[in-house]
Amino acid sequence: MTYCVGIKLNAGLVFLSDSRTNAGVDHISTFRKMIVYERPGDRFMVLLTAGNLSIAQSVREILQTEQLKDPGGGEPVSIWNARSMFDATRVLGQAVRHVYERDAEALRHSGVEFNVSMIFGGQIRGEGMRLFSVYSAGNFIEATAETPFFQIGESKYGKPVLDRLVRPETSLDEAAKCALVSMDSTMKSNLSVGPPLDLAVYEVDRFASEKLVCIDMSNPYYRMVHSSWGQKLREAFDSVPDPVWQGATDLPLATESCQHKPLRKIGRPEERLI
Amino acid sequence: MTYCVGIKLNAGLVFLSDSRTNAGVDHISTFRKMIVYERPGDRFMVLLTAGNLSIAQSVREILQTEQLKDPGGGEPVSIWNARSMFDATRVLGQAVRHVYERDAEALRHSGVEFNVSMIFGGQIRGEGMRLFSVYSAGNFIEATAETPFFQIGESKYGKPVLDRLVRPETSLDEAAKCALVSMDSTMKSNLSVGPPLDLAVYEVDRFASEKLVCIDMSNPYYRMVHSSWGQKLREAFDSVPDPVWQGATDLPLATESCQHKPLRKIGRPEERLI
Repeated sequence: MTYCVGIKLNAGLVFLSDSRTNAGVDHISTFRKMIVYERPGDRFMVLLTAGNLSIAQSVREILQTEQLKDPGGGEPVSIWNARSMFDATRVLGQAVRHVYERDAEALRHSGVEFNVSMIFGGQIRGEGMRLFSVYSAGNFIEATAETPFFQIGESKYGKPVLDRLVRPETSLDEAAKCALVSMDSTMKSNLSVGPPLDLAVYEVDRFASEKLVCIDMSNPYYRMVHSSWGQKLREAFDSVPDPVWQGATDLPLATESCQHKPLRKIGRPEERLI
Repeated sequence: MTYCVGIKLNAGLVFLSDSRTNAGVDHISTFRKMIVYERPGDRFMVLLTAGNLSIAQSVREILQTEQLKDPGGGEPVSIWNARSMFDATRVLGQAVRHVYERDAEALRHSGVEFNVSMIFGGQIRGEGMRLFSVYSAGNFIEATAETPFFQIGESKYGKPVLDRLVRPETSLDEAAKCALVSMDSTMKSNLSVGPPLDLAVYEVDRFASEKLVCIDMSNPYYRMVHSSWGQKLREAFDSVPDPVWQGATDLPLATESCQHKPLRKIGRPEERLI
Protein backbone atom coordinates (compact mmCIF):
# COMPACT_ATOMS: atom_id res chain seq x y z
CA MET A 1 0.00 0.00 0.00
CA THR A 2 0.97 3.66 -0.14
CA TYR A 3 0.01 6.95 1.40
CA CYS A 4 0.80 10.23 -0.33
CA VAL A 5 -0.60 13.71 0.18
CA GLY A 6 -0.20 16.92 -1.82
CA ILE A 7 -1.36 20.27 -0.41
CA LYS A 8 -1.78 23.58 -2.25
CA LEU A 9 -1.59 26.67 -0.08
CA ASN A 10 -1.40 30.36 -0.84
CA ALA A 11 2.22 30.23 0.33
CA GLY A 12 3.27 27.19 -1.71
CA LEU A 13 2.98 23.45 -2.07
CA VAL A 14 3.67 20.54 0.31
CA PHE A 15 4.18 16.94 -0.83
CA LEU A 16 4.67 13.92 1.44
CA SER A 17 4.97 10.25 0.53
CA ASP A 18 5.75 7.00 2.32
CA SER A 19 7.90 4.35 0.67
CA ARG A 20 6.43 0.96 1.51
CA THR A 21 5.22 -1.38 -1.19
CA ASN A 22 3.78 -4.79 -0.65
CA ALA A 23 2.55 -7.71 -2.66
CA GLY A 24 0.77 -9.48 0.14
CA VAL A 25 1.95 -9.02 3.71
CA ASP A 26 5.05 -11.15 3.28
CA HIS A 27 6.62 -9.36 0.35
CA ILE A 28 7.36 -5.90 1.66
CA SER A 29 9.88 -3.60 0.01
CA THR A 30 10.94 0.03 -0.01
CA PHE A 31 10.35 2.13 -3.12
CA ARG A 32 10.35 5.90 -3.17
CA LYS A 33 7.08 7.28 -4.55
CA MET A 34 8.07 10.92 -5.00
CA ILE A 35 9.90 12.33 -7.97
CA VAL A 36 10.95 15.97 -8.29
CA TYR A 37 11.42 17.69 -11.65
CA GLU A 38 13.23 21.00 -11.46
CA ARG A 39 14.72 23.44 -13.92
CA PRO A 40 15.66 26.30 -11.60
CA GLY A 41 13.99 29.59 -12.49
CA ASP A 42 11.71 27.93 -15.05
CA ARG A 43 9.71 25.07 -13.49
CA PHE A 44 9.36 22.94 -10.38
CA MET A 45 7.10 19.89 -10.42
CA VAL A 46 6.51 16.95 -8.09
CA LEU A 47 4.93 13.61 -8.98
CA LEU A 48 3.60 11.20 -6.33
CA THR A 49 2.46 7.73 -7.40
CA ALA A 50 0.31 4.99 -5.85
CA GLY A 51 -1.11 1.73 -7.14
CA ASN A 52 0.55 -1.06 -9.09
CA LEU A 53 4.29 -0.44 -8.82
CA SER A 54 5.16 -1.74 -12.28
CA ILE A 55 2.65 0.67 -13.83
CA ALA A 56 3.84 3.59 -11.68
CA GLN A 57 7.48 2.98 -12.56
CA SER A 58 6.69 2.70 -16.26
CA VAL A 59 4.72 5.96 -16.17
CA ARG A 60 7.61 7.70 -14.44
CA GLU A 61 10.10 6.35 -16.95
CA ILE A 62 8.24 7.28 -20.11
CA LEU A 63 7.02 10.61 -18.71
CA GLN A 64 10.59 11.85 -19.13
CA THR A 65 10.34 11.64 -22.92
CA GLU A 66 6.57 11.62 -23.50
CA GLN A 67 5.36 14.22 -26.00
CA LEU A 68 1.92 15.50 -26.93
CA LYS A 69 1.49 16.33 -30.60
CA ASP A 70 0.59 19.96 -31.23
CA PRO A 71 -2.45 19.90 -33.59
CA GLY A 72 -1.24 23.22 -35.02
CA GLY A 73 1.98 21.60 -36.18
CA GLY A 74 4.13 23.36 -33.60
CA GLU A 75 6.73 21.83 -31.31
CA PRO A 76 5.45 18.76 -29.42
CA VAL A 77 4.69 19.37 -25.75
CA SER A 78 6.67 17.61 -23.02
CA ILE A 79 6.79 18.21 -19.27
CA TRP A 80 10.01 20.12 -19.95
CA ASN A 81 8.58 22.67 -22.39
CA ALA A 82 4.88 22.74 -21.39
CA ARG A 83 3.77 26.32 -20.80
CA SER A 84 1.27 25.39 -18.11
CA MET A 85 0.88 22.73 -15.43
CA PHE A 86 -2.38 21.82 -17.16
CA ASP A 87 -0.47 20.89 -20.32
CA ALA A 88 2.21 19.08 -18.29
CA THR A 89 -0.55 17.06 -16.63
CA ARG A 90 -2.00 16.23 -20.06
CA VAL A 91 1.42 14.81 -20.94
CA LEU A 92 1.30 12.72 -17.76
CA GLY A 93 -2.22 11.52 -18.65
CA GLN A 94 -0.97 10.47 -22.10
CA ALA A 95 1.96 8.62 -20.50
CA VAL A 96 -0.54 6.67 -18.36
CA ARG A 97 -2.55 5.81 -21.48
CA HIS A 98 0.56 4.59 -23.27
CA VAL A 99 1.35 2.23 -20.40
CA TYR A 100 -2.29 1.12 -20.49
CA GLU A 101 -2.03 0.27 -24.19
CA ARG A 102 1.15 -1.67 -23.56
CA ASP A 103 0.24 -3.56 -20.34
CA ALA A 104 -3.48 -3.52 -19.51
CA GLU A 105 -4.56 -6.53 -21.57
CA ALA A 106 -1.73 -8.75 -20.33
CA LEU A 107 -2.45 -7.64 -16.75
CA ARG A 108 -6.11 -8.50 -17.23
CA HIS A 109 -5.14 -12.00 -18.38
CA SER A 110 -3.40 -12.37 -15.00
CA GLY A 111 -6.42 -11.01 -13.16
CA VAL A 112 -4.64 -7.76 -12.29
CA GLU A 113 -6.53 -4.50 -12.59
CA PHE A 114 -4.85 -1.54 -14.28
CA ASN A 115 -4.53 0.50 -11.11
CA VAL A 116 -2.43 3.60 -10.70
CA SER A 117 -3.16 7.01 -9.19
CA MET A 118 -1.01 10.08 -9.02
CA ILE A 119 -0.71 13.54 -7.54
CA PHE A 120 1.11 16.00 -9.79
CA GLY A 121 1.72 19.61 -8.87
CA GLY A 122 4.10 22.49 -9.21
CA GLN A 123 4.63 25.78 -10.95
CA ILE A 124 5.80 26.79 -14.42
CA ARG A 125 6.99 30.35 -15.00
CA GLY A 126 4.13 32.44 -16.40
CA GLU A 127 1.33 31.02 -14.26
CA GLY A 128 0.42 30.26 -10.64
CA MET A 129 0.96 27.01 -8.77
CA ARG A 130 -1.37 24.12 -9.64
CA LEU A 131 -2.08 20.73 -8.13
CA PHE A 132 -3.72 17.79 -9.92
CA SER A 133 -5.00 14.33 -9.03
CA VAL A 134 -4.56 11.95 -11.97
CA TYR A 135 -6.49 8.69 -12.37
CA SER A 136 -5.83 5.34 -14.05
CA ALA A 137 -7.61 6.50 -17.20
CA GLY A 138 -5.24 9.43 -17.56
CA ASN A 139 -8.01 11.91 -16.70
CA PHE A 140 -7.46 14.36 -13.88
CA ILE A 141 -8.97 16.94 -11.53
CA GLU A 142 -7.45 20.10 -10.08
CA ALA A 143 -7.32 21.30 -6.48
CA THR A 144 -9.24 24.47 -5.63
CA ALA A 145 -9.48 26.71 -2.58
CA GLU A 146 -12.37 24.57 -1.29
CA THR A 147 -10.37 21.36 -1.73
CA PRO A 148 -6.78 22.36 -1.08
CA PHE A 149 -5.32 18.87 -0.82
CA PHE A 150 -5.32 15.49 -2.56
CA GLN A 151 -4.47 12.11 -1.11
CA ILE A 152 -3.72 8.82 -2.87
CA GLY A 153 -3.39 5.28 -1.53
CA GLU A 154 -4.45 4.54 2.04
CA SER A 155 -6.05 7.93 2.51
CA LYS A 156 -8.81 7.53 5.08
CA TYR A 157 -6.96 7.25 8.38
CA GLY A 158 -5.13 10.50 7.78
CA LYS A 159 -7.98 12.51 6.26
CA PRO A 160 -9.80 13.86 9.35
CA VAL A 161 -6.80 15.82 10.61
CA LEU A 162 -6.28 17.39 7.16
CA ASP A 163 -10.00 18.15 6.84
CA ARG A 164 -9.95 19.96 10.15
CA LEU A 165 -6.66 21.84 9.93
CA VAL A 166 -5.63 22.62 6.35
CA ARG A 167 -6.88 25.83 4.72
CA PRO A 168 -5.38 27.82 1.84
CA GLU A 169 -4.07 30.35 4.42
CA THR A 170 -2.19 27.66 6.37
CA SER A 171 1.56 28.30 6.44
CA LEU A 172 3.96 25.93 4.70
CA ASP A 173 5.56 24.82 7.96
CA GLU A 174 2.18 24.17 9.56
CA ALA A 175 1.01 22.23 6.52
CA ALA A 176 4.20 20.13 6.55
CA LYS A 177 3.57 19.40 10.25
CA CYS A 178 -0.06 18.50 9.49
CA ALA A 179 1.00 16.19 6.67
CA LEU A 180 3.41 14.45 9.04
CA VAL A 181 0.69 14.04 11.69
CA SER A 182 -1.63 12.64 9.00
CA MET A 183 1.11 10.22 7.89
CA ASP A 184 1.85 9.24 11.49
CA SER A 185 -1.80 8.34 12.11
CA THR A 186 -1.85 6.33 8.89
CA MET A 187 1.31 4.39 9.73
CA LYS A 188 -0.07 3.64 13.20
CA SER A 189 -3.26 2.16 11.73
CA ASN A 190 -1.93 0.45 8.60
CA LEU A 191 1.26 -1.60 8.54
CA SER A 192 1.43 -1.41 4.76
CA VAL A 193 2.34 2.28 4.94
CA GLY A 194 5.88 2.83 6.20
CA PRO A 195 9.08 4.84 6.31
CA PRO A 196 11.25 6.39 5.06
CA LEU A 197 9.13 9.40 4.14
CA ASP A 198 9.92 11.93 1.43
CA LEU A 199 8.85 15.50 2.10
CA ALA A 200 9.08 18.34 -0.43
CA VAL A 201 8.07 21.92 0.35
CA TYR A 202 7.87 24.53 -2.41
CA GLU A 203 7.54 28.30 -1.87
CA VAL A 204 5.39 30.15 -4.41
CA ASP A 205 7.23 31.84 -7.32
CA ARG A 206 10.60 30.31 -6.46
CA PHE A 207 10.71 27.80 -9.41
CA ALA A 208 13.11 25.68 -7.37
CA SER A 209 13.28 24.24 -3.87
CA GLU A 210 15.96 23.04 -1.51
CA LYS A 211 13.37 21.93 1.03
CA LEU A 212 13.47 18.24 0.20
CA VAL A 213 14.12 15.78 2.95
CA CYS A 214 14.09 12.04 3.47
CA ILE A 215 12.73 11.24 6.94
CA ASP A 216 13.31 7.96 8.70
CA MET A 217 12.55 6.97 12.26
CA SER A 218 15.78 8.58 13.49
CA ASN A 219 14.70 12.06 12.31
CA PRO A 220 14.62 14.32 15.39
CA TYR A 221 11.65 16.43 14.31
CA TYR A 222 9.56 13.47 13.19
CA ARG A 223 10.31 11.60 16.41
CA MET A 224 9.08 14.58 18.39
CA VAL A 225 5.86 14.78 16.34
CA HIS A 226 5.37 11.03 16.64
CA SER A 227 5.75 10.97 20.42
CA SER A 228 4.08 14.26 21.30
CA TRP A 229 1.02 14.09 19.04
CA GLY A 230 -0.48 11.13 20.91
CA GLN A 231 0.10 12.98 24.19
CA LYS A 232 -1.37 16.26 22.91
CA LEU A 233 -4.37 14.46 21.48
CA ARG A 234 -4.92 12.80 24.86
CA GLU A 235 -4.78 16.21 26.59
CA ALA A 236 -7.20 17.70 24.07
CA PHE A 237 -9.51 14.74 24.58
CA ASP A 238 -9.33 15.05 28.36
CA SER A 239 -10.22 18.73 28.14
CA VAL A 240 -13.58 17.93 26.47
CA PRO A 241 -16.06 17.22 29.30
CA ASP A 242 -17.17 13.61 29.77
CA PRO A 243 -20.87 13.00 29.18
CA VAL A 244 -23.32 13.45 32.01
CA TRP A 245 -26.36 11.34 31.35
CA GLN A 246 -29.02 13.42 33.06
CA GLY A 247 -29.60 15.81 35.94
CA ALA A 248 -27.67 18.90 36.93
CA THR A 249 -26.00 19.80 33.64
CA ASP A 250 -26.71 22.09 30.74
CA LEU A 251 -25.23 19.52 28.35
CA PRO A 252 -27.13 16.31 29.12
CA LEU A 253 -26.41 13.31 26.92
CA ALA A 254 -29.85 11.80 27.48
CA THR A 255 -32.52 14.27 26.47
CA GLU A 256 -36.08 14.39 25.25
CA SER A 257 -35.13 16.74 22.43
CA CYS A 258 -34.32 13.96 19.92
CA GLN A 259 -36.79 13.92 17.04
CA HIS A 260 -36.46 10.17 16.61
CA LYS A 261 -38.06 7.34 18.53
CA PRO A 262 -35.96 6.02 21.41
CA LEU A 263 -34.34 2.63 20.87
CA ARG A 264 -36.70 -0.10 22.01
CA LYS A 265 -35.26 -3.08 23.86
CA ILE A 266 -36.24 -6.61 22.86
CA GLY A 267 -37.05 -8.78 25.84
CA ARG A 268 -38.60 -12.00 24.50
CA PRO A 269 -38.20 -14.36 21.52
CA GLU A 270 -41.75 -13.60 20.37
CA GLU A 271 -41.22 -9.86 20.24
CA ARG A 272 -41.43 -8.27 16.81
CA LEU A 273 -38.54 -6.06 15.78
CA ILE A 274 -40.36 -3.61 13.55
CA MET B 1 -22.72 3.09 4.27
CA THR B 2 -22.58 2.61 8.02
CA TYR B 3 -20.27 3.20 10.91
CA CYS B 4 -20.61 1.22 14.14
CA VAL B 5 -18.17 0.69 16.99
CA GLY B 6 -18.26 -1.65 19.99
CA ILE B 7 -15.78 -1.24 22.87
CA LYS B 8 -15.06 -3.69 25.69
CA LEU B 9 -13.62 -2.12 28.84
CA ASN B 10 -12.97 -3.43 32.32
CA ALA B 11 -15.88 -1.26 33.47
CA GLY B 12 -18.36 -2.36 30.82
CA LEU B 13 -19.31 -2.10 27.15
CA VAL B 14 -20.00 0.83 24.83
CA PHE B 15 -21.86 0.55 21.52
CA LEU B 16 -22.43 3.35 19.02
CA SER B 17 -24.07 3.24 15.59
CA ASP B 18 -25.12 5.72 12.93
CA SER B 19 -28.36 5.25 11.01
CA ARG B 20 -27.74 6.22 7.39
CA THR B 21 -28.21 3.75 4.59
CA ASN B 22 -27.73 4.43 0.94
CA ALA B 23 -28.14 2.69 -2.36
CA GLY B 24 -26.12 5.13 -4.41
CA VAL B 25 -25.87 8.74 -3.30
CA ASP B 26 -29.41 9.62 -4.32
CA HIS B 27 -31.27 6.99 -2.33
CA ILE B 28 -30.51 7.83 1.26
CA SER B 29 -32.64 6.62 4.14
CA THR B 30 -32.57 6.25 7.89
CA PHE B 31 -32.45 2.78 9.44
CA ARG B 32 -31.37 2.08 12.99
CA LYS B 33 -28.50 -0.41 13.12
CA MET B 34 -28.47 -1.21 16.83
CA ILE B 35 -30.68 -3.71 18.55
CA VAL B 36 -30.68 -4.34 22.29
CA TYR B 37 -31.70 -7.70 23.81
CA GLU B 38 -32.31 -7.57 27.53
CA ARG B 39 -33.76 -9.90 30.13
CA PRO B 40 -33.01 -7.95 33.32
CA GLY B 41 -30.86 -9.84 35.80
CA ASP B 42 -30.11 -12.62 33.28
CA ARG B 43 -28.64 -11.22 30.06
CA PHE B 44 -27.91 -8.01 28.17
CA MET B 45 -26.78 -8.17 24.55
CA VAL B 46 -26.35 -5.62 21.77
CA LEU B 47 -26.18 -6.34 18.03
CA LEU B 48 -24.81 -3.80 15.52
CA THR B 49 -25.14 -4.51 11.80
CA ALA B 50 -23.50 -3.19 8.63
CA GLY B 51 -23.58 -4.24 5.00
CA ASN B 52 -26.51 -5.09 2.77
CA LEU B 53 -29.61 -3.88 4.62
CA SER B 54 -31.91 -6.66 3.41
CA ILE B 55 -29.47 -9.26 4.74
CA ALA B 56 -28.98 -7.42 8.03
CA GLN B 57 -32.72 -7.09 8.61
CA SER B 58 -33.31 -10.76 7.80
CA VAL B 59 -30.57 -11.81 10.21
CA ARG B 60 -32.09 -9.66 12.95
CA GLU B 61 -35.55 -11.06 12.32
CA ILE B 62 -34.64 -14.74 12.33
CA LEU B 63 -32.13 -14.38 15.16
CA GLN B 64 -35.11 -13.96 17.48
CA THR B 65 -36.18 -17.56 16.91
CA GLU B 66 -32.97 -19.18 15.60
CA GLN B 67 -31.96 -22.36 17.47
CA LEU B 68 -28.79 -24.43 17.48
CA LYS B 69 -29.35 -28.17 17.83
CA ASP B 70 -27.71 -29.65 20.91
CA PRO B 71 -25.76 -32.74 19.68
CA GLY B 72 -26.35 -34.31 23.12
CA GLY B 73 -30.10 -34.18 22.57
CA GLY B 74 -30.68 -31.43 25.12
CA GLU B 75 -32.71 -28.29 24.68
CA PRO B 76 -31.85 -26.35 21.52
CA VAL B 77 -29.79 -23.21 22.11
CA SER B 78 -31.16 -19.76 21.32
CA ILE B 79 -29.89 -16.30 22.20
CA TRP B 80 -32.45 -16.34 25.01
CA ASN B 81 -31.23 -19.50 26.74
CA ALA B 82 -27.55 -19.64 25.67
CA ARG B 83 -25.32 -20.03 28.73
CA SER B 84 -22.46 -18.05 27.22
CA MET B 85 -22.01 -15.17 24.79
CA PHE B 86 -19.90 -17.57 22.73
CA ASP B 87 -22.93 -19.81 22.23
CA ALA B 88 -25.20 -16.84 21.59
CA THR B 89 -22.75 -15.71 18.89
CA ARG B 90 -22.81 -19.20 17.37
CA VAL B 91 -26.59 -18.82 17.11
CA LEU B 92 -26.05 -15.48 15.34
CA GLY B 93 -23.54 -17.12 12.98
CA GLN B 94 -26.08 -19.82 12.15
CA ALA B 95 -28.73 -17.16 11.48
CA VAL B 96 -26.33 -15.51 9.00
CA ARG B 97 -25.80 -18.88 7.28
CA HIS B 98 -29.54 -19.45 7.03
CA VAL B 99 -29.98 -16.10 5.28
CA TYR B 100 -27.06 -17.04 3.04
CA GLU B 101 -28.76 -20.32 2.04
CA ARG B 102 -31.97 -18.45 1.29
CA ASP B 103 -30.64 -15.36 -0.53
CA ALA B 104 -27.02 -15.65 -1.66
CA GLU B 105 -27.58 -17.35 -5.00
CA ALA B 106 -30.36 -14.98 -6.07
CA LEU B 107 -28.23 -12.02 -4.99
CA ARG B 108 -25.33 -13.37 -7.04
CA HIS B 109 -27.59 -13.56 -10.10
CA SER B 110 -28.17 -9.83 -9.63
CA GLY B 111 -24.46 -9.18 -9.22
CA VAL B 112 -24.83 -8.43 -5.49
CA GLU B 113 -22.29 -9.82 -3.07
CA PHE B 114 -23.50 -11.45 0.15
CA ASN B 115 -22.16 -8.74 2.40
CA VAL B 116 -23.01 -8.30 6.06
CA SER B 117 -20.89 -7.68 9.13
CA MET B 118 -21.87 -7.45 12.75
CA ILE B 119 -20.66 -6.59 16.21
CA PHE B 120 -22.33 -8.62 18.96
CA GLY B 121 -21.52 -8.20 22.62
CA GLY B 122 -22.93 -8.35 26.09
CA GLN B 123 -23.02 -10.41 29.23
CA ILE B 124 -24.92 -13.52 30.31
CA ARG B 125 -25.14 -14.34 34.00
CA GLY B 126 -22.43 -16.85 34.92
CA GLU B 127 -19.62 -15.40 32.83
CA GLY B 128 -17.85 -12.12 32.09
CA MET B 129 -18.66 -9.64 29.35
CA ARG B 130 -17.68 -10.61 25.80
CA LEU B 131 -17.53 -8.79 22.48
CA PHE B 132 -17.49 -10.43 19.04
CA SER B 133 -17.05 -9.35 15.43
CA VAL B 134 -19.11 -11.58 13.11
CA TYR B 135 -18.44 -11.94 9.39
CA SER B 136 -20.55 -12.74 6.32
CA ALA B 137 -19.65 -16.42 6.58
CA GLY B 138 -21.04 -16.59 10.10
CA ASN B 139 -17.57 -17.01 11.58
CA PHE B 140 -16.41 -14.63 14.28
CA ILE B 141 -13.54 -13.32 16.38
CA GLU B 142 -13.53 -12.07 19.98
CA ALA B 143 -12.12 -8.84 21.42
CA THR B 144 -9.20 -9.17 23.83
CA ALA B 145 -7.33 -6.75 26.09
CA GLU B 146 -4.93 -6.00 23.22
CA THR B 147 -7.80 -5.26 20.82
CA PRO B 148 -10.54 -3.81 23.00
CA PHE B 149 -12.76 -2.52 20.19
CA PHE B 150 -14.31 -3.56 16.89
CA GLN B 151 -15.58 -1.36 14.09
CA ILE B 152 -17.78 -2.23 11.12
CA GLY B 153 -18.67 -0.25 8.00
CA GLU B 154 -16.76 2.93 7.22
CA SER B 155 -14.18 2.32 9.92
CA LYS B 156 -10.97 4.01 8.82
CA TYR B 157 -11.62 7.71 9.41
CA GLY B 158 -12.53 7.10 13.03
CA LYS B 159 -9.89 4.49 13.87
CA PRO B 160 -6.83 6.63 14.76
CA VAL B 161 -8.55 8.34 17.70
CA LEU B 162 -9.71 4.96 19.08
CA ASP B 163 -6.24 3.46 18.55
CA ARG B 164 -4.67 6.26 20.52
CA LEU B 165 -7.16 6.68 23.36
CA VAL B 166 -9.04 3.46 24.16
CA ARG B 167 -7.52 1.01 26.65
CA PRO B 168 -9.24 -1.63 28.81
CA GLU B 169 -8.84 0.74 31.81
CA THR B 170 -10.67 3.60 30.05
CA SER B 171 -13.84 4.62 31.90
CA LEU B 172 -17.26 4.10 30.33
CA ASP B 173 -17.93 7.83 30.06
CA GLU B 174 -14.55 8.46 28.44
CA ALA B 175 -15.06 5.61 26.00
CA ALA B 176 -18.52 6.94 25.09
CA LYS B 177 -16.96 10.36 24.47
CA CYS B 178 -14.21 8.76 22.36
CA ALA B 179 -16.75 6.80 20.31
CA LEU B 180 -18.65 10.05 19.66
CA VAL B 181 -15.44 11.83 18.57
CA SER B 182 -14.65 8.88 16.29
CA MET B 183 -18.18 9.05 14.83
CA ASP B 184 -17.94 12.82 14.43
CA SER B 185 -14.71 12.51 12.42
CA THR B 186 -16.31 9.82 10.26
CA MET B 187 -19.43 11.87 9.55
CA LYS B 188 -17.26 14.87 8.65
CA SER B 189 -15.31 12.82 6.09
CA ASN B 190 -18.03 10.56 4.68
CA LEU B 191 -21.51 11.80 3.81
CA SER B 192 -22.87 8.26 3.76
CA VAL B 193 -22.54 8.03 7.55
CA GLY B 194 -25.13 10.14 9.34
CA PRO B 195 -27.42 10.83 12.29
CA PRO B 196 -29.33 10.00 14.37
CA LEU B 197 -26.86 8.00 16.44
CA ASP B 198 -27.73 5.23 18.88
CA LEU B 199 -25.52 4.91 21.94
CA ALA B 200 -25.73 2.09 24.49
CA VAL B 201 -23.53 1.90 27.58
CA TYR B 202 -23.50 -1.22 29.77
CA GLU B 203 -21.93 -1.46 33.24
CA VAL B 204 -20.31 -4.81 34.07
CA ASP B 205 -22.42 -7.32 36.06
CA ARG B 206 -25.61 -5.27 35.79
CA PHE B 207 -27.40 -7.56 33.26
CA ALA B 208 -29.50 -4.57 32.20
CA SER B 209 -28.94 -0.99 31.17
CA GLU B 210 -30.91 2.22 31.11
CA LYS B 211 -28.06 4.06 29.39
CA LEU B 212 -29.50 3.96 25.89
CA VAL B 213 -29.88 7.19 24.00
CA CYS B 214 -30.76 8.34 20.52
CA ILE B 215 -28.63 11.34 19.57
CA ASP B 216 -29.50 13.75 16.81
CA MET B 217 -27.94 17.05 15.89
CA SER B 218 -29.97 18.85 18.57
CA ASN B 219 -28.40 16.81 21.39
CA PRO B 220 -26.65 19.30 23.71
CA TYR B 221 -23.74 17.04 24.64
CA TYR B 222 -23.08 15.90 21.09
CA ARG B 223 -23.23 19.48 19.81
CA MET B 224 -20.61 20.46 22.37
CA VAL B 225 -18.34 17.56 21.34
CA HIS B 226 -18.87 18.37 17.66
CA SER B 227 -17.99 22.04 18.03
CA SER B 228 -15.25 21.81 20.63
CA TRP B 229 -13.30 18.82 19.27
CA GLY B 230 -12.19 20.69 16.15
CA GLN B 231 -11.09 23.62 18.33
CA LYS B 232 -9.25 21.41 20.84
CA LEU B 233 -7.54 19.51 18.05
CA ARG B 234 -6.42 22.82 16.56
CA GLU B 235 -5.00 23.89 19.93
CA ALA B 236 -3.21 20.55 20.35
CA PHE B 237 -1.82 20.88 16.84
CA ASP B 238 -0.64 24.44 17.48
CA SER B 239 1.14 23.32 20.62
CA VAL B 240 3.38 20.93 18.64
CA PRO B 241 6.35 22.98 17.37
CA ASP B 242 6.45 23.75 13.64
CA PRO B 243 9.39 22.23 11.80
CA VAL B 244 12.67 24.11 11.62
CA TRP B 245 14.59 23.00 8.58
CA GLN B 246 18.13 23.48 9.77
CA GLY B 247 20.30 25.58 12.06
CA ALA B 248 19.82 26.48 15.69
CA THR B 249 17.48 23.74 16.85
CA ASP B 250 17.81 20.40 18.53
CA LEU B 251 14.93 19.05 16.41
CA PRO B 252 15.97 19.79 12.84
CA LEU B 253 13.73 18.45 10.09
CA ALA B 254 16.57 18.25 7.55
CA THR B 255 19.34 16.10 8.91
CA GLU B 256 22.17 13.91 7.73
CA SER B 257 21.07 11.12 10.05
CA CYS B 258 18.71 9.47 7.53
CA GLN B 259 19.97 6.05 6.48
CA HIS B 260 18.45 6.40 3.02
CA LYS B 261 19.70 8.24 -0.02
CA PRO B 262 18.40 11.80 -0.36
CA LEU B 263 15.78 12.34 -3.03
CA ARG B 264 17.50 13.23 -6.30
CA LYS B 265 15.94 15.90 -8.49
CA ILE B 266 15.49 15.30 -12.21
CA GLY B 267 16.58 18.26 -14.29
CA ARG B 268 16.61 17.11 -17.93
CA PRO B 269 14.59 14.83 -20.23
CA GLU B 270 17.62 12.59 -20.76
CA GLU B 271 18.18 11.97 -17.09
CA ARG B 272 17.71 8.39 -15.91
CA LEU B 273 15.39 7.88 -12.96
CA ILE B 274 17.01 4.84 -11.41
